[in-house]
Amino acid sequence: MALTGVRVVDLTRVLAGPFCTALLADMGAEVIKIEAPDGGDPVRRQGVIPQGMSWYFAQFNRNKRSLTLDLYSEQGKQVLADLLADADVLVENYRPGVLARMGFTPERLDKINPRLVVTSINGYGATGPFAARPAFDFIAQAMSGFMSVNGAEGTPPMRVAPPVSDLVAGLYAAFGTVCALHRRQADGAEGRGQQVETSLVNGLISMLAYLSAEFFATGELPPRTGNDHPIVAPYGLFRAADGDIAVAPSNDVFVERFLAALGLAALLERPEFADNQARMRHREDLKARINEVVGSRPVAYWIEQLNAAGVPCGRPQNLHEVFADPQVQAQEMVIEASHADGETIKMTGFPVKLSATPCALRRPAPELGADSEGVLAELGYDAARIAALRQAGVI
Amino acid sequence: MALTGVRVVDLTRVLAGPFCTALLADMGAEVIKIEAPDGGDPVRRQGVIPQGMSWYFAQFNRNKRSLTLDLYSEQGKQVLADLLADADVLVENYRPGVLARMGFTPERLDKINPRLVVTSINGYGATGPFAARPAFDFIAQAMSGFMSVNGAEGTPPMRVAPPVSDLVAGLYAAFGTVCALHRRQADGAEGRGQQVETSLVNGLISMLAYLSAEFFATGELPPRTGNDHPIVAPYGLFRAADGDIAVAPSNDVFVERFLAALGLAALLERPEFADNQARMRHREDLKARINEVVGSRPVAYWIEQLNAAGVPCGRPQNLHEVFADPQVQAQEMVIEASHADGETIKMTGFPVKLSATPCALRRPAPELGADSEGVLAELGYDAARIAALRQAGVI
Repeated sequence: MALTGVRVVDLTRVLAGPFCTALLADMGAEVIKIEAPDGGDPVRRQGVIPQGMSWYFAQFNRNKRSLTLDLYSEQGKQVLADLLADADVLVENYRPGVLARMGFTPERLDKINPRLVVTSINGYGATGPFAARPAFDFIAQAMSGFMSVNGAEGTPPMRVAPPVSDLVAGLYAAFGTVCALHRRQADGAEGRGQQVETSLVNGLISMLAYLSAEFFATGELPPRTGNDHPIVAPYGLFRAADGDIAVAPSNDVFVERFLAALGLAALLERPEFADNQARMRHREDLKARINEVVGSRPVAYWIEQLNAAGVPCGRPQNLHEVFADPQVQAQEMVIEASHADGETIKMTGFPVKLSATPCALRRPAPELGADSEGVLAELGYDAARIAALRQAGVI
Repeated sequence: MALTGVRVVDLTRVLAGPFCTALLADMGAEVIKIEAPDGGDPVRRQGVIPQGMSWYFAQFNRNKRSLTLDLYSEQGKQVLADLLADADVLVENYRPGVLARMGFTPERLDKINPRLVVTSINGYGATGPFAARPAFDFIAQAMSGFMSVNGAEGTPPMRVAPPVSDLVAGLYAAFGTVCALHRRQADGAEGRGQQVETSLVNGLISMLAYLSAEFFATGELPPRTGNDHPIVAPYGLFRAADGDIAVAPSNDVFVERFLAALGLAALLERPEFADNQARMRHREDLKARINEVVGSRPVAYWIEQLNAAGVPCGRPQNLHEVFADPQVQAQEMVIEASHADGETIKMTGFPVKLSATPCALRRPAPELGADSEGVLAELGYDAARIAALRQAGVI
């Protein structure tokens, strides 16, 4: 696999960090998830738990091994130091400064293992006046401006339902980690690790795209436009006989194809629909005329017709429809993990497809501490030492 | 820099692909953006263009060089083949099959350069019944189910305002590309390139997080809950004297801190607010009681008080406020590029911070074809050959 041979020590919990290490694990990295002995990652207790394993936890912790470790104890810290000496990557999502206060300052980490890549994910970035503030997805969506552009006209700022700030930060962290590994490897025997850092707020700011670019260029705040495109018409949801269709003709060529497929090409000869500026002014009128035609036939008819005409369109699918979609199934975007107690847990598949070294489900998410003995034995700890650690409650 | 020495040939346009190659370029890769001689990337003509350069284009094409090339001509295809022989990565976002129809089948690419990583970004994935359909962000948001979970109760499915499907796919593509480079390099002289692929729809499906996990576990569709958390109360926007505050107390500890900071700790002793389940049933009542207290003081007061009490909170900032925010400025999330004509273009900064090999703005986005001569000269083309290509309209 792409990251076979990369050993990751994972101190993260909840979402952004575990998503980062799941991405690395899906690519073949060996990820050792370190969890507190008294319950471990809180996500183990979140969401629906049909048979002892949270399906939410299972999704984000597949392909990892679990080692319990009391990091408040000196013995636990020693185990961590031993693990790091032998690792390529450490990933953590404590608030800035916490890892150092635990005794693992950048200087000590460099001493333990100068080739170690240390990846940190936090809320606001590691420096600056708000660095120490606690952050969660909802707060990051608020502070980054992401909420301010989202939602319909005349409504308050609206969060995005999925926890995008965690997911984007986790993905950026995985990307940064592999970039640092590339540099280290390209430098050969001279190769050194370094600190890689990203944050929930910075990740979302970098996703404002044309909304931030337009703001910088004009100084004007972008309006909230719901499903309408701020500068293109027609665009959005249209009402077929049995449901909505989403149509996104992003330029004149697509608009022509769209209206021609509806038998409305003649509209483009009228001054109020002749160009995009005119269509924006008469958007509601145009939408009503389109809905009149679209409403006469079912969704499936229009999806076929419009795709055949080269018009980007689709249906706003609910999750039932998404995971029953033949394309989504052909792409193997639902996979199943077989857990030890016979439970089969469904989860989303791999969005990045590599032809020679594809992502794979190698092992289901671990029970808490399932790999403690195995990991420590590989590290050279003998049975007596492992038993003593267990006796002392360190693992 | 992290990716210094990595040469990327970039055939992409508009957004997902250019975002991927911008991420690689920000990390130090040398990106040669290939554009059609008659106008190039359409984003050059999109958004506000105060002085000849679109700020939207400038953001997504910083750190790249531009080579014009007519890929319909045989001579243009030969130039591309010569570039690929010398490159590490090819990134393209044509519809599946188009690159092969241009003459660059996987077999030929492997022959030209067996170490080439070929990264493709498309709408629905390269195989399956809908592979050939055109896709845009709005359609991907609809087809992936992302719209179905987004928005407020009782409203239609709502798109996310920023083009998240393009951005997420671009980021996944960059991650996959560097993973493939890592594998190639780790394999030493035996190292080979491979195909890396991601799609707008698959990327968003992988971002449904607990919403898909809960759906798989229960078979029930998640409700749209707007700014309310589906399973936690209190949570969301609250109304201070001069604006809203966002508060996200994700568990009982934070709820206690939040209510204590408001002087409302006694509420937790009442049966209707004693635990999260009870609070979910009495959510509106609780919200009203909180708003009564919060409304007595301004936003700034509560942000200070609640952060000091360890309660995750913030303000739903508009873009004015985001880019004036001292934390965002301390994180250098606004940077300025100096363009040749004296124009200074603002853009968002680097969300991934590397300590030893940080991302940097090395050059502003190029004018169309600005680097044609330079790139071809480096490839060993002499002045006469370059002049002939220009004469023939190939560059």
